[in-house]
Amino acid sequence: MHWYIIGSMAALLTMFGFVPQVIKIFCTKSVEDVSLPMLFQFGIGVLLWTLYGFHLRNPIHVVANIVTFLTLSVVIGLYIHYSYVIVGRNNER
Amino acid sequence: MHWYIIGSMAALLTMFGFVPQVIKIFCTKSVEDVSLPMLFQFGIGVLLWTLYGFHLRNPIHVVANIVTFLTLSVVIGLYIHYSYVIVGRNNER
Repeated sequence: MHWYIIGSMAALLTMFGFVPQVIKIFCTKSVEDVSLPMLFQFGIGVLLWTLYGFHLRNPIHVVANIVTFLTLSVVIGLYIHYSYVIVGRNNER
Repeated sequence: MHWYIIGSMAALLTMFGFVPQVIKIFCTKSVEDVSLPMLFQFGIGVLLWTLYGFHLRNPIHVVANIVTFLTLSVVIGLYIHYSYVIVGRNNER
């Protein structure tokens, strides 16, 4: 029970770890200082952790990494939107 | 052997996941768009994952999370340096 709580807390904190970054990007509409290679490196890493979690047969591990991957995808989507799409629109003017 | 490679790749990618962000902050000397709550949330989460890794008796899990925590500490240190220290110096002028 004790380890279940520690594992669940760890999972909750890291699987929603990119949520504050999503909120910040939504508020500031700016991603200039965020590293895109960091986002992609985490994306591939988290996908591999998910596979490894299946191997360990540890459901906390698998679910946590899938949710991390999904929130990370939102950050990457917002990054592309606010850097390339917005810049593209400004260049058209 | 197959799972060892997947686990090691996952560990390498995520444990050095914040390195591209460290490099970006060093180059731009700006952290305005990076979310500090994200860094702290990951910090606490990764510490708890380390404990949980000890429980699982999985060395890859433990080492990966300790290294992630260390690189994350560098990002937090740089964040504080480039936001508060630099801003403080500019205000003194």
